[in-house]
This record gives sequence, structure tokens and C-alpha cells, in this order.
Amino acid sequence: MSIGKSINRVDAFDKVTGRAQFTDDFKLNNALVAKVLHSTIASGVVKVIDISEAMKLKGVVKIVTCFDVPDIQYPTAGHPYSLDPAHMDIADRKLLNKIVRYYGDDIAAVVATDIVTATRAINLIKVEYEEYKPILSIEAALKQGANKIHEEYPGNILAHTSYEIGNYENAIKEEGLIVFEGEYELSPVKHCHIENPISYAYAEGKRLVVVSSTQIPHIARRVIGQALGMDWGKIRVIKPYIGGGFGNKQEVLYEPLNAYLCKVIGGRCVKLDISREEDFVNTRLRTAMKIKIKSYVRANGRFVARKLEMYGNKGAYASHGHSVTNKSGHAFKQIYKDEVATKGDMYSVYTNMPASGAMRGYGIPQITFALESHVDDIASKLGLDKIEMRKLNAMKLGFIDNQVKCNSNGLAECIDKGRKYIDWDNKLIEYKNQTGPVRRGVGMAIFSYAVGVFPISLETAACRIVLNQDGSVQVQMGATEIGQGADTVFAQMVSEVLDIPIENVHTISTQDTDITPFDTGAYASRQSYVSGMAAKKAAMELKEKIIEHANFMLRLPAGNLELKDNNIIKKETGEVLASLKDVSMHALYNTEKSVHITSEVTNQCKSNTFAFGVCFAEVEVDIPVGKIKVIKVINVHDSGTILNPALAAAQVHGGMSMSLGYGLTEQLLFDDATGRMLNDNLLDYKLPTTMDTPHLEAQFVETYDVSGPFGNKALGEPPAIPVAPAIRNAVLNATGVNFNIAPLTPQRLVEKFKKENLI
Amino acid sequence: MSIGKSINRVDAFDKVTGRAQFTDDFKLNNALVAKVLHSTIASGVVKVIDISEAMKLKGVVKIVTCFDVPDIQYPTAGHPYSLDPAHMDIADRKLLNKIVRYYGDDIAAVVATDIVTATRAINLIKVEYEEYKPILSIEAALKQGANKIHEEYPGNILAHTSYEIGNYENAIKEEGLIVFEGEYELSPVKHCHIENPISYAYAEGKRLVVVSSTQIPHIARRVIGQALGMDWGKIRVIKPYIGGGFGNKQEVLYEPLNAYLCKVIGGRCVKLDISREEDFVNTRLRTAMKIKIKSYVRANGRFVARKLEMYGNKGAYASHGHSVTNKSGHAFKQIYKDEVATKGDMYSVYTNMPASGAMRGYGIPQITFALESHVDDIASKLGLDKIEMRKLNAMKLGFIDNQVKCNSNGLAECIDKGRKYIDWDNKLIEYKNQTGPVRRGVGMAIFSYAVGVFPISLETAACRIVLNQDGSVQVQMGATEIGQGADTVFAQMVSEVLDIPIENVHTISTQDTDITPFDTGAYASRQSYVSGMAAKKAAMELKEKIIEHANFMLRLPAGNLELKDNNIIKKETGEVLASLKDVSMHALYNTEKSVHITSEVTNQCKSNTFAFGVCFAEVEVDIPVGKIKVIKVINVHDSGTILNPALAAAQVHGGMSMSLGYGLTEQLLFDDATGRMLNDNLLDYKLPTTMDTPHLEAQFVETYDVSGPFGNKALGEPPAIPVAPAIRNAVLNATGVNFNIAPLTPQRLVEKFKKENLI
Repeated sequence: MSIGKSINRVDAFDKVTGRAQFTDDFKLNNALVAKVLHSTIASGVVKVIDISEAMKLKGVVKIVTCFDVPDIQYPTAGHPYSLDPAHMDIADRKLLNKIVRYYGDDIAAVVATDIVTATRAINLIKVEYEEYKPILSIEAALKQGANKIHEEYPGNILAHTSYEIGNYENAIKEEGLIVFEGEYELSPVKHCHIENPISYAYAEGKRLVVVSSTQIPHIARRVIGQALGMDWGKIRVIKPYIGGGFGNKQEVLYEPLNAYLCKVIGGRCVKLDISREEDFVNTRLRTAMKIKIKSYVRANGRFVARKLEMYGNKGAYASHGHSVTNKSGHAFKQIYKDEVATKGDMYSVYTNMPASGAMRGYGIPQITFALESHVDDIASKLGLDKIEMRKLNAMKLGFIDNQVKCNSNGLAECIDKGRKYIDWDNKLIEYKNQTGPVRRGVGMAIFSYAVGVFPISLETAACRIVLNQDGSVQVQMGATEIGQGADTVFAQMVSEVLDIPIENVHTISTQDTDITPFDTGAYASRQSYVSGMAAKKAAMELKEKIIEHANFMLRLPAGNLELKDNNIIKKETGEVLASLKDVSMHALYNTEKSVHITSEVTNQCKSNTFAFGVCFAEVEVDIPVGKIKVIKVINVHDSGTILNPALAAAQVHGGMSMSLGYGLTEQLLFDDATGRMLNDNLLDYKLPTTMDTPHLEAQFVETYDVSGPFGNKALGEPPAIPVAPAIRNAVLNATGVNFNIAPLTPQRLVEKFKKENLI
Repeated sequence: MSIGKSINRVDAFDKVTGRAQFTDDFKLNNALVAKVLHSTIASGVVKVIDISEAMKLKGVVKIVTCFDVPDIQYPTAGHPYSLDPAHMDIADRKLLNKIVRYYGDDIAAVVATDIVTATRAINLIKVEYEEYKPILSIEAALKQGANKIHEEYPGNILAHTSYEIGNYENAIKEEGLIVFEGEYELSPVKHCHIENPISYAYAEGKRLVVVSSTQIPHIARRVIGQALGMDWGKIRVIKPYIGGGFGNKQEVLYEPLNAYLCKVIGGRCVKLDISREEDFVNTRLRTAMKIKIKSYVRANGRFVARKLEMYGNKGAYASHGHSVTNKSGHAFKQIYKDEVATKGDMYSVYTNMPASGAMRGYGIPQITFALESHVDDIASKLGLDKIEMRKLNAMKLGFIDNQVKCNSNGLAECIDKGRKYIDWDNKLIEYKNQTGPVRRGVGMAIFSYAVGVFPISLETAACRIVLNQDGSVQVQMGATEIGQGADTVFAQMVSEVLDIPIENVHTISTQDTDITPFDTGAYASRQSYVSGMAAKKAAMELKEKIIEHANFMLRLPAGNLELKDNNIIKKETGEVLASLKDVSMHALYNTEKSVHITSEVTNQCKSNTFAFGVCFAEVEVDIPVGKIKVIKVINVHDSGTILNPALAAAQVHGGMSMSLGYGLTEQLLFDDATGRMLNDNLLDYKLPTTMDTPHLEAQFVETYDVSGPFGNKALGEPPAIPVAPAIRNAVLNATGVNFNIAPLTPQRLVEKFKKENLI
């Protein structure tokens, strides 16, 4: 009844009218306010913290320092918990840290009656450090004899993994192969969700409640328990509406500290509101990477062997550990994999920089930028058709990599659609022999994206549905709405299975770990695929129970009834026997067998599949001023069934905008000597605005993936992947200059154009 | 592990520290404030309402009058909904009423930015009435040709029911019978919960959310839907902690109006806080009654035939309809019923007085006052032992009245315990021949009380339990904590079944009709009996699921494991195989079969049983000033298994205090001409304070009732029943004067003592 329709967002009205309640709207009586003191060095040890002047301030309730907190190291990653110790997340930080590992590390916190007092107190705290020279690059970290940033990781390598598919050494022996090498550098960027991280913590009996803007309430509960050394059942996490996350809130950063502050002051409510500047420095970044690719190619463009060496700059803390770099490295062997020998070496390296973690795409934007730049360079050099070379090498139906199976593949059609929209063939001819300072070009990039985290980690999700007297239902998902439209899509799924109108499906948007069915949260584009299957199964169970009661009510034998269009009908004849409302009323209120019809199902997902997509871009490059203007840009996605075209398009628009910024303007600047971030705000950090953004065309190729609940597969993250490399390739097409670094800022363009004698 | 222990209240810490959140603590952004305009006549019709001056006030958002509201009559009683039209509650009011039926009727409402503006606006509204002479007594209402208060009820009789057990006319023919007749009058009293009725209403999408201090969230949802003509699923009711209800919040009074106001202003949050004065006049009273009893007794005190004629003064609206009076009248044939022919006639009568509804005891305090006064008078007149006469006639084990069965009966032992505590036999002798102005006496009263509402109405309750990773659980009950300790007792029940410590059971105290399992609510002392069985069954289901997973985890065949003391043990040997925590962790996080273990069960209760109790009191009567001092007082209860002795004693203390006030001081005063309540506040209404209250002794006789989940039966309401008549009978014993009216105020005593020539 609802799948495939552009249903309005279920939260649209409340969000546009300002009714929707976000964390900061939880006005709790007498809430105290906390503020964190951050280090002003990037590497060293806190020797003394003098809080005496700060404590004299009226309104200061408590100051805790890195010398007071429990001696517990805990993990912060928003990963499913693993029972296997070897697979557990790295626990490398305390609530506050004596050992300072980046400029801005958390070393103390103030609880006061108001934010002004808290801030003044922060400024009155005096800190003495023993200071070391900070390690601000991957190279410096890997240098022989470099300081150890974490005692347990000599050489500052958090992890190194590798793989080999086929026999690389044999493969490269083939005669006539052409060798290509490329080095690519991806800068860190920031999520820039509208709502900064914020939480309230208060005690309830002997338990702690944390209301937080998080993508992962159930994981937050667990991590708070771990950080405070409390039983997990004594922690309750509530997630209201949240103003975006993009992976940054797939980590448990300040909730544990806030819970701890609440605990040490005796349980009174404490609010910890992270400022935009803190969000830039003290939460997470997209992982900066250095990527080396070596390829052996036949003259027709067929890959024969490929080798990857990549380094992810973790910054000061493990955050998601090796996962981002590892996933990035493994994706290298997926999109292009047809009779190819492939080797990969992935390193995650600690530095004294702000930590990097999850961000929409989780490593795939980085590897895709490198790989698609690389492929374009090869095709350019060999004079091959760039599309044909990609089609020749790209993943085919049936491909399996570590249980991720290509069940459906619309990549070729995606390319065709994009090609047509951008008028690729004509433009290629038109732009062939340009001269002059302003030139145009077209470029494209493809990618594949595996859904969720199976089989690397556990994929589990649950859903509960409650039937109302009027035949409407509430849907309770552990999975979280974070702005992506999950609640709407879950409502559509339940509407579809029960065959009731979407208005009669009420999705409970607030997750509360005390009552909400378990789900690991919003990440990895898993929700419509993994959690959606839980919604589908729970709806099917509810339907069965409704029909069972209808049989009882109508005194009919089992097996003859169906739920259709809000009615109970006879299967064979379609005859309407009762309305769903009548059955619902009867179920609750009949005095013979009263039953409150609800359903609850856990879905463990043991499958995975690939989504695909492509971006085509047309750009105009003003060579003397190094300015790139995007004339036209399109993403075409194969994400299986499109559950809600309007929402899907919105997802694509958002992702394209992110990838535009990634490719063109977003660059974090750091002081070379101290490692201090220089543009930690939305004025100095160049996030694209609507003024910078062209029309973003979003199109789809619908396939039906048998493993998805309704044929659907990942769509949340994919749009953020291909735009940056497509633009980079369009610049190559326009100017003949290949940039191997993102973003393509005017400064970088001008420098390189000068070097290439274009200016 | 927990049943029968004096576990601390699970909400104790939060309530004494002020952490617990009540409705008024829900600080919602920009909430508007509503205030109701009440009529200043008791009977008439609103002709014109002029809001022009009020609308000019800055800050007034909306004024609605009785001319604006939907033309829908709806019921307000907190009864389970019935599918049988004949059994549905009376729908005799609108959101605001053009026809004024008591002094204070709701005729208009203002929504403003703040309470001062709202109040000023109320004062600026001008109303013109067509006024009738109000009907202020049962007699006036029943008078031939009296005005009809409700068009549909000529003669102002809301209902008249009757019964006859045995053959009354035959029975009274027995020779040698002595006839006794008595007339008793019970005044209305007020619940006086600490927290006045309060609600917030706001829109969420196309739905309305009402946060309210209610005993019956699921019923409130339904009634709001009925009153507004909305689908019930579009209403969501949330119940935070509430500061008492005592039956007054077992009715849906101002929530529908608040929801309507919110709706007509477009969904912005509206707060409607009922003042103490409004609570007195505009919510509900204990039903005032006139009761006539005629008894035929043998010389040994054996009843042979009894006849009841009773009139309940409903006031202006049906409220709970005929239920209170009817239940009261039926109880007449229960406590004394051994070879007795009994006839009853019960009338509920509309008057132009504030409406009466449910209050702790639901008619049983009234009939018990009358009946126990009557019995004492008979025994006095016949010179019989008052205890022996009662024992001779009282209900015996096995008695059944309309499916309510006496499965357990500790009444005789209750009497013995009370007799001993009060030193009954010695005191009777000691106080035999008193003279002088100050005299002492002892009195007692017994009662029986049926649990819940089966078979009159549906008894259904549900519970959901969620297992945490640490082996602790959350318990979600549709049944509500209203101060009585239900949450604690439910936690004990779950702790008992699962054999886990009480600290590991977290009861979710907030009910939210969107997610909370269905339950009709807190009333009729049904919670530990009806809802408790749901908690027990849900815990049993959870236990089964835990053991099932333990079998899977341990690779053992089904049937060998048990959950004991937080561990999974081998049934035969007691060997500990795994901790509950290990199993809980494994269930969620194992990658082979991940499952979020929860349970959810509906319990429909199709049994009922009798609780019993007795009060013994010793009083000192200062005859010239008409003052009664209670020297000693004890309630002894047979409520089956005592689940939590400390909480049970607290329940008894609260009930005894209520019954003390009922018998001695609580009297509502009305203006004879206008029907206006004169003492509508806690200064002028004489609720007993701690200064007025003697030590309240609470004792129990524990029986085991097979129909209760843990052998338990009703305890919530019974304590409020017997104290008033016991005191009345002690006054009779002290002075020889029988008062047939409650309360026994000094004025009434002095008047009657004068008449009896004692002063």
C-alpha cells in the first residue's frame, strides 16, 4: 500500500513547525551545566591542575580532573559489541586524560549552575604540562624512534591488515602489461550536522539516565556502563529527535563523562552541550588517508593485477579503530574485480591530531576518489573510453567477497542514465580541443557499497508493533531516525505488510533503551535493509495474530482469512467479513478472550549485498583563478527497490552536497607547530552553501535485491561517495591536469596549473 | 526471592529527593495556559456569553464557549469499555455545557500565554443565564413534577436496580422474629489527593498527546477520542508519577477539554492545571447516600430476612453512573449472608449538586457504615454479644455471589486479633456504667470486599518484560503506580518468578498508551490481583525464553535447566552452568542466533474473591463539647498473602486516616439556596492532620487465596472502610446514643446529646 510511493516524511509537520522535541528541548528542572577543559598542547602529560581559583566562583558545583576519574579505559566506537575478545573495540581513553594526545584533549570538567559560570571557571583553571613535540603526520608517526602516542602501540601503528586475491606475483608476469602508479591524498573533513552533540544526565533511583543526541542509543548505554564500570542495566539512554549525525554520533564521546559528572554530584541533572568549536576539534573527522595504487593493465584497459597500500590517519584515539581504513582497503577489491589479482595493505596510524572516526561512506569516499582518479588517469594515458574501461573491469552479478554477494546489479544502466543526462558523448567531442583560460570538461566515477556490517560484525535488529483499537498501530524500532527518513520508511513497510494506510502507522521516534527493542543503531546504511526486515517480520507476526483473532471472533476455522485494505476478508471470495477496527476492538474488549495484540521480532541479518552508483559531472575551470564551477552533476543509484522516491532523492541531494564539499572546498587547517585546528567553525570552514550548489540531479535504476526486505539495499551513504572523484575527473578532462588530492581548492589548482604551465 | 518482604518502595529515593517527575515537571517550550469558566448558578441555561472584553486582553490566544464545542455527549467514567451497548457508560455531558446543572458547571475556557492573563480573561467574560430553582437533595429530585436535570431521565432517576435472594416475604413470616429498622445518612467527602488534576496537551503530527495525572491512561485515551470524535489511535496519553488519585483520577474530566483546546489553537502545547478549589467543586465526591435497612432477627441475633433501600446522590452528572450505588447495595448481601432472605433496591438520583463518582472503597464505606451501625444497634437492643452476633451471621468459606467466591476467609482471626489489641472484653466491663461528662467506649465493625470488577466488567491486564545484558530486567505495566506502591509489588513479583534480586528489576513507572501494554488502570484494588497475574505470567514467559536460550548456548537438550539465584543451574544437581548475565550477553551478542529476549502477556482475569477486615476502636467522648477523641484504633485485614508488609501497613494507615475523617470531621458545606460549595479548600474542609490522628495500628491475618497470583487479594481500598462505623459504635458503647449519620461532628453530637438529655 505504501512501498515505492513518495509518502511525506512522518516527522515533516512536527519538524517544520518546530514542534519536534530535540535533546535541548528537554527542559529539566534545575539542570546544572557542565563544560570541559581542553588541553592547549597536542602532546604531553598533565602534571598539575590547580582548581582553587575556579572553585571560589559562586555557582561552581564540582570540578573533576584527569586525576579524579576512574582508572578505566573504554572504547567509544559505535560498533556492535563482540563476545570475542580479539574482535572487541580498542579501549584507549579514560573519561579525562592525564596523557595529552592532541590539541584539545579532555583534561578536566566543571559543573556549575549556569554556562557563564562554568565557562568562567574553565578559564580560571591552571594547568601545568610536561610537553612533547607533537606528531602531526603519518610520516612522523611511522618514523623510526618516534614517540609512542599510546604505550600499547609501538611504532604508532594501531593495526595493519592485508589480503591477497589471486596470485599477484604470477599475474604481473603476463607479457605486455602496462604499469601505472598513483599516490592519492584525502584530507580530513567534518560532518557539520546542524545539532551539536548534547546530552542530559540524571539519576533515577540507583540508575543513571542519559538523554542524548546519538545515532546509537543501545550502544551508548553499553559504553557508558563500560566507562563508569557500572552494570549496563543500570544505564538508560533516551534518544529524542536528532539534528543529524553522519557517523559522528555513531560514537559515544561525551555521554560517559556527563553520566559520570551526574553521578559524582549525587544524581542531579547535568547538561553537557558541546559547542560548534568543540564539535570540530573534540568529536570526530573523516579519516585522512594516503593511498598508493599500482596497477598492471592490458592495452585494452583490462586490469590484470592491482596493489594497494593505504594509511589512515587515526589521530589521537582509536575511535572506530582500524575499521574505516580496513573497509576502505577491502572495497578496493570489490568494484573492480574480474579475473584480477589484488593485494592490499592497510595501516591505521596514531598521530597527535584530532581523532578520525565514522563519517558517511566509512572509507569508501576515500578509496573511490583514489581508485576512480587512478582509472581515469589510466584511460586518459591509454586513450581508452573511460566508460568502457570501467564496464570492462567492474563487478558482475554473482560476485562474492567474504559473504557479501552481488545479488543485483544495475551499474551498467546507472552509467547509461548518467551518460545520457550529462550528454557525455557530445560533450567529450565538444570539449576536446579547448584553449584559453576557462575550459570545460566532463568526468564520472563509479562505486559499489556493501550494506551494513555483516559478516564483519553482528547484525541484529528488533521491532515491536502495538495494535490500537481503531486498527492503527505503533511501530517501535530500536533503529534510529537521524534525519535520514528511517521512521517514514519503517512506517511504509508496516503499512505495506498490514495493508493499512500510512496515516494509521505511528512510528515511535524516541528510542529509550529501557523499553525500545534492541538495535545497534543508525550506521552503515543498514536500517532499511537490516532493521527494515525486523519491521517486516514484526508486521507479518502482527498480521497473523490479527487474523487469528478474527477467526476466533467470526468463529471460523483457521486459514480462510486475509487482511486487506483495512478489512478482514475471505481469502477465496474477497468478501469483507469485518473491519480491522471491529477485530481490534473485539480483541481488547470482548469478555471471552481479551488480548492486547502486539508483536515483537528480532531479525538477525546474515546476508549482505552491493549497492551501486555513478556520478557524472560537467565543470568549468577558470584556470588563472583556480576556480571550479560545477555546471551539471548527476548521481544515479542502484539501491534496489526505491522505497520512497522523494526521500531517496533527498538522501541523494544531501550526499552529493557532502561529496561536493569533500571534492572542492572543505579543508581543515592546522597549525604546523602545535597541531591546533585553525578553522574550527562554520565561518572559516568552507562547507558548501546553497549559493555554491548547482542543481543536484538524482536518478535511480531500480533492481530487486532478493536479500532485502522489499528488494531494497543501501542508499544512505552511497550518494556521498562519487561526486568528488567525478569532478576531479572532469577537471582532468577540461584541463588535462590530474589532481591526486582532495579537496581541489583554488590554491592547489593555481599551484599545479602553474607547475603545468597553464598559467 | 522478594514476595512477603518489606522491600523499600522502588520509587522511594526519587520521591523523597524530589527527583521524581510529575506532570507539572514536564516543562514544555512555550506552553500556553488554559483556565475554565464555571457557572455561578446551579441550574439553568446559558443564554449569552460575551467574550469581547476578554478577547481584548493582550496574551489571550483563544476563548471557546459552550456554543463552540462539538455536539458530542461522552462518558467520563474510568470503566473498562464494553462492546455491549446496554453496558456502556452514560454519556451525559459535553466538553462545555449550555445547560447548567450545578454551581460550577464548565461553560467556557480561555487559552492564554500565562495564568494571570487567563484568569483576568475569565473574570472579563460576561454570562447571561436563564435560571431555574436548583434541586439540591435526593428528596427534591424525586418529588413529583420536579424539573428534569437531564432530559433523558424523567424523575431524575439515573438508574434503579433491585435483587431478591431467597424469599423475603416467606422468611419474615417466621414466628418470634424481632424487626429492626434504621435510616442512615452518609455525606459526600472529598479525595484530597496532594496533586491536583493537571494535564498538558500538544499535537504530534496529526495526533494529540495528553500528559496527565491520571489513574487510567488507556481509558483516558479512549474517552478523549470519544469526546473529540477522533479515532482513538490518534490520541496518546502519557502518565508520569502522580500525587494520589483515590478514585478521583479514575475518571476522565479535564483531559478531553484540554485536548480540544490544543486542537483548536492548532496543536501548540496547552497546560490545564486545576486549582484546589476547582478540584473540590468540579471533580468528584464520594457518593452521598440515604440508606434504609429493615431486618428480621431471631432472639439469638440470627438474621432471617433483611431489606435494603438506598439512594445515591449522583449530583449533576452520571460520572460512574449507577455503579457505586449498585455495588454498595450488592455488598449488603455479601458480608452477612447465611440462610438469609435479602432484598435490595438501589437508586441513583441526579441532583443539581457537584457530581459524585469513584472514591476509595466505591460504595462499601457507605453500606458498611449503615450495616455495622444497624448490627450494633440490634445487638445493643437485644443485649447480645456484638462480636458473636456478627460471627453468627457473617459470610463463610465457599460463599459465592455472582461468580465472586469466598476462597479464603480469615475474618474470624481478624476479629480475634483486633479484640485482643483493643482489650475488648476488659474494656466492655470497665466502661459499663459510666456517668459524668467524659465517657469512654469501644466499638468495632467488619466488612468484606470483592476484588476488581469481574464479572461486572472486563478484567484485562498486560505486562511486557525486557531482559538487559546484565541479567536485570525492565517491567512495563499498563497498570499504574498512583502512590499505592504498585510498581514495587510488581517488581517483587517479577523478582520472585525469575529469582533475581529486586535491585535488578526496573519498573517503568511512566505509562504511555503508544507503547505500554494495555491495562484498564488503577482502581477497584485490582492491580496486585489482576495486573499482578499478568506480571507473573510475563515473568514466567521470560524465564522460559531465558532457559531456552541457555539450552542453545550450552548445547543441552531442553528440560534440564532452571533459573536460580541469578544463575542457570542443572535441575537435578543444582550445578551452576552459567550466570544469567552470561546467558543474557550471549543471547544478544552471539553471532549464530542473536535474540533480544522480551516477553509480553495479556492476562484476562475471570475470577474474583473476597478480602475481609475489621476495625476496633476505643474512644473518649467529651459529651458537653461534642468531642470524640480516638484513644486506640486497629485495622486487621485478611488480604491473602501480604506481598510487602511495610507497604501493606502504609496502605492501611492511609485508609484508616481517610475513614477517620469520614467518620469524624470531613463535611462539605453547601449554600442551601444556591447549591454553592462553601468550604472548597483545605483550610475550611477538615481533613484530619497528623495532629488529629492517633497511632494507627495495622495488623494482618495472612490467608492464601488460590485465585490470586501469589495468594494475594485486595488491600488498596479495604482499609478505608471500617474505621468510621467502628468509631460510631464505640460512641454508642460510651454514651448509649446511636448516630446514624456521618461524619460525627461536634455540632451533630451536641444536638443529639441534648435531645437525649445527656446535656
